[in-house]
Amino acid sequence: MAARTPARFPRVALIGRHGGPDLAAPLSKLAAFLLARGHTVALDAETAKTASADGVAVLDDDALASGADLAIVLGGDGTMLSVARRLAPHDVPMIGVNLGRLGFLTDIPLARLEPTLAAMLDGRYAEERRTLLDVTVARADGSAAHAPALNEVVVNRGGLGSMVECRVEIDGRFVYSMRADGVIVATPTGSTAYNLAAGGPIVSPAMDAVILTPIAPHTLTNRPIVIPAASPVRVQPLIEDRDEVFVTFDGQAGFQLEAGDEIRICRAERTLRLIRPSTRSYFEVLREKLKWGER
Amino acid sequence: MAARTPARFPRVALIGRHGGPDLAAPLSKLAAFLLARGHTVALDAETAKTASADGVAVLDDDALASGADLAIVLGGDGTMLSVARRLAPHDVPMIGVNLGRLGFLTDIPLARLEPTLAAMLDGRYAEERRTLLDVTVARADGSAAHAPALNEVVVNRGGLGSMVECRVEIDGRFVYSMRADGVIVATPTGSTAYNLAAGGPIVSPAMDAVILTPIAPHTLTNRPIVIPAASPVRVQPLIEDRDEVFVTFDGQAGFQLEAGDEIRICRAERTLRLIRPSTRSYFEVLREKLKWGER
Amino acid sequence: MAARTPARFPRVALIGRHGGPDLAAPLSKLAAFLLARGHTVALDAETAKTASADGVAVLDDDALASGADLAIVLGGDGTMLSVARRLAPHDVPMIGVNLGRLGFLTDIPLARLEPTLAAMLDGRYAEERRTLLDVTVARADGSAAHAPALNEVVVNRGGLGSMVECRVEIDGRFVYSMRADGVIVATPTGSTAYNLAAGGPIVSPAMDAVILTPIAPHTLTNRPIVIPAASPVRVQPLIEDRDEVFVTFDGQAGFQLEAGDEIRICRAERTLRLIRPSTRSYFEVLREKLKWGER
Amino acid sequence: MAARTPARFPRVALIGRHGGPDLAAPLSKLAAFLLARGHTVALDAETAKTASADGVAVLDDDALASGADLAIVLGGDGTMLSVARRLAPHDVPMIGVNLGRLGFLTDIPLARLEPTLAAMLDGRYAEERRTLLDVTVARADGSAAHAPALNEVVVNRGGLGSMVECRVEIDGRFVYSMRADGVIVATPTGSTAYNLAAGGPIVSPAMDAVILTPIAPHTLTNRPIVIPAASPVRVQPLIEDRDEVFVTFDGQAGFQLEAGDEIRICRAERTLRLIRPSTRSYFEVLREKLKWGER
Repeated sequence: MAARTPARFPRVALIGRHGGPDLAAPLSKLAAFLLARGHTVALDAETAKTASADGVAVLDDDALASGADLAIVLGGDGTMLSVARRLAPHDVPMIGVNLGRLGFLTDIPLARLEPTLAAMLDGRYAEERRTLLDVTVARADGSAAHAPALNEVVVNRGGLGSMVECRVEIDGRFVYSMRADGVIVATPTGSTAYNLAAGGPIVSPAMDAVILTPIAPHTLTNRPIVIPAASPVRVQPLIEDRDEVFVTFDGQAGFQLEAGDEIRICRAERTLRLIRPSTRSYFEVLREKLKWGER
Repeated sequence: MAARTPARFPRVALIGRHGGPDLAAPLSKLAAFLLARGHTVALDAETAKTASADGVAVLDDDALASGADLAIVLGGDGTMLSVARRLAPHDVPMIGVNLGRLGFLTDIPLARLEPTLAAMLDGRYAEERRTLLDVTVARADGSAAHAPALNEVVVNRGGLGSMVECRVEIDGRFVYSMRADGVIVATPTGSTAYNLAAGGPIVSPAMDAVILTPIAPHTLTNRPIVIPAASPVRVQPLIEDRDEVFVTFDGQAGFQLEAGDEIRICRAERTLRLIRPSTRSYFEVLREKLKWGER
Repeated sequence: MAARTPARFPRVALIGRHGGPDLAAPLSKLAAFLLARGHTVALDAETAKTASADGVAVLDDDALASGADLAIVLGGDGTMLSVARRLAPHDVPMIGVNLGRLGFLTDIPLARLEPTLAAMLDGRYAEERRTLLDVTVARADGSAAHAPALNEVVVNRGGLGSMVECRVEIDGRFVYSMRADGVIVATPTGSTAYNLAAGGPIVSPAMDAVILTPIAPHTLTNRPIVIPAASPVRVQPLIEDRDEVFVTFDGQAGFQLEAGDEIRICRAERTLRLIRPSTRSYFEVLREKLKWGER
Repeated sequence: MAARTPARFPRVALIGRHGGPDLAAPLSKLAAFLLARGHTVALDAETAKTASADGVAVLDDDALASGADLAIVLGGDGTMLSVARRLAPHDVPMIGVNLGRLGFLTDIPLARLEPTLAAMLDGRYAEERRTLLDVTVARADGSAAHAPALNEVVVNRGGLGSMVECRVEIDGRFVYSMRADGVIVATPTGSTAYNLAAGGPIVSPAMDAVILTPIAPHTLTNRPIVIPAASPVRVQPLIEDRDEVFVTFDGQAGFQLEAGDEIRICRAERTLRLIRPSTRSYFEVLREKLKWGER
């Protein structure tokens, strides 16, 4: 006899780390666990290449977005970033399960997956709404490219360059022209990633904020700035001669910029809906990742 | 014939830097300027000790707070901080005029005072609402002291100590026990003061945020954290034997803590109403103070 | 039959952590181990208050310094600092044994004490010569106080002050007048202590250098400076009215300064002779203390 | 009647900024000034393309190095770096004249060139010996490339990469495997350049030291380390798949690395002989460049 259709998240999509060799076993175990609880389970097409499970449909991104009430992602924070950008136009909540080391977005360990998930599917979870960035790269000829980012958008020099000069505006007001390896525009979610390495602050994901952090700035007083996420940011790199300047999104996608390109960053209309165990605080994860020690 | 009573800020209080020798002349000039425009003008009692003006009443703080629609402060950022704490329980908007060097809160230069003020009194100003902190120092015996802060509250070691250990909670959740020279809990207004010197980020005054910045922390990963101003912060210093630990407010007031004291910081109900020239952006002041250069 | 007098370090002094309750057992075990190998063993008078051992003399500092070829210190880095300052005028090499957590100066764990020490007493050790500072506090009336420091000398504000302004000279040349919580003048040995917390660099103990690191400087470009240890440093704090400014040595000794006091720091004539296991590199200790991870 | 051959620096080579349009006039004026004082004057071949002067020979680098007792460089610090690398194998002292803004290496302003130079040629100068790096890039196939550096050698990621992992050894001892944007190995001369922007300390050029500074390191405790210049440094980047990793010298020359490449850095046998006005201290230049203010 089949289980009753559950009230919460009846249709679940499973998405695994790209090309993960250690994915197949936990994924099919997870599928069986969910099916036994009465959920409909689907795999995304990419994941289905390296793993499969009985009684599970395979869906492309659009079908998955419209046909799932929840996406469970198995991998690391990198996998979560990439899935979050893919599903950004949709409104599917996400749960992150870490296959390797604890992450900020994937803080459910595989070893404790089933009891943790059972509690969450029974309603003991916290839903966080994380700010996403909507990035436009506008070209001098009037054309434009668009991309989302969950952690950060970065404008930086190439491997052989010395510095890039960027003119920065916030809310249409000139801030500075800084010369640096580059500039990071990060969300609170991204504050503990590249931003932290470059000297930026930790910003609680409860904040609706954006952080501008220069990377190795020539002017030492060009310090990180935290502004409201609602304030649009404009970055105009000065690109001359053989300068190589790049834009990247979550460190995973990107391209080389041309002279005259400008990058406009604003808060995306949709937020990322992150479903986390209610028993685990943000600061617990911070303590563990940053080795703050207990006491 | 007397000027008509102006529509905006009819009753203006003037407050000068404590004991400022260069205060008398600009203050009486300013009083005359305001009287000529039809404003009622009052001096606070402290200021009246070193300066005076014709046609001007002298009021104590309570009378001043209830009897003024605007306070114009002549001095530096330090004067503004001290006046802001005094007037914190009231709701009097403030304008800052710098008698010396440009400040973040006193960004109207004396040399341009009358034309700038004329424009502002005619309605060309921006009103900013700045977050104030409401600090409680709770003693083990149940007693408690209260103090406001506009820039920051600091818990730090004495002059001969080596470190203070503080247990920190945010929103009732344990964050860390850090050992450091101390910890700064700053507002966005205070982000460019002590917080910046200690490695904290610049936080736009448009943010409703609070910044926790450890001073010279023993654990290098104890980095500044930005949280919502609505989140209460609790700091519990570990005070043993001959440890000397102090709490200070805006670097201007404070006292020595005792074993068992804990410091609770939350957003004050009232905000500071800061009236600034509409022509000058926050980033302009930053550029000038931090010598970012123009381009 | 008694062991032959050993060729290396025939006379060993044992010095324990002040008031350490866990000292007695390891100390008497160590004494027995050394006596069995033919060494003469002495205790310093302070240590003898809480621990004792058969066949062991008790000596005051002067006798100990002239009558010992080696001092073995049981405690933490703090104990080593304090003993190093006491023995600074003499030339007794030191070995540090950590009773608690691994230290930079006490990197021999109690659990491995006898085999490690046996190897070292047989000649398998590295001798490092660590720079000591010789600090003079010169008063306006011509009087002067002297103190050594192994980690650092610090000039800093009191617990309620806001900043101290210090004029700094190196080699008789004006460097800057900085306003900060204080300034650290550290040795390479001290570079991983307070200096590191305040943003200073790690400096290899093989360097004959001194590091000037401002603590939370008002001017953000006042960055740490590394100079030759042979260059004398002069720090002149500006002390007015009720300013409280302090000088401390290794965070363990110190006093309040008066207006007109100036602090002169130069390399001491003697170095500290630190005897360490030859199998353990400086970087191994760094990796462990700073949790760099292995790979 | 011709001037007598001067005792100091009889043969002077003039080298100008590459392609500098503002070079011709000051260069011919300088040549005339030197000729009038009895010096033999030569131009390097590159400079001769855009400027010339009567009575002046044009020499290639080898001839110039063997036929000059002094090189006067007109340009900025960048020009000095490039000339220093070109002349590194030789032993020609250098004087730097800034055509634009004050530099660390070019601290003689054009406006004061003749009186300053007259004093220096009369013997009132200080000669500083600056450490140069000798960099070997060793390939897995046994081949190797060599390059000098005056400021720094940098191993960093490409424009689209996320991080580079580098294994670092000092003196043949493993230090750490760090993941970062890259790592800077700088001389004291270079300490105020890229190293400072990346968070490294200022190191007096009187120090015989090398500084390792990670750029935006993932592990926050990977702090800058100062070591003796005599200690060889080995950097082994882990290059997989499509990773792009680059090595650069003084930010001016460089190339892409291949899997298996390793970078060995040691102090060059020769130092750079820098001739500076004896009236100007290193700290004066620092104060001016870093805007420390006077007092």
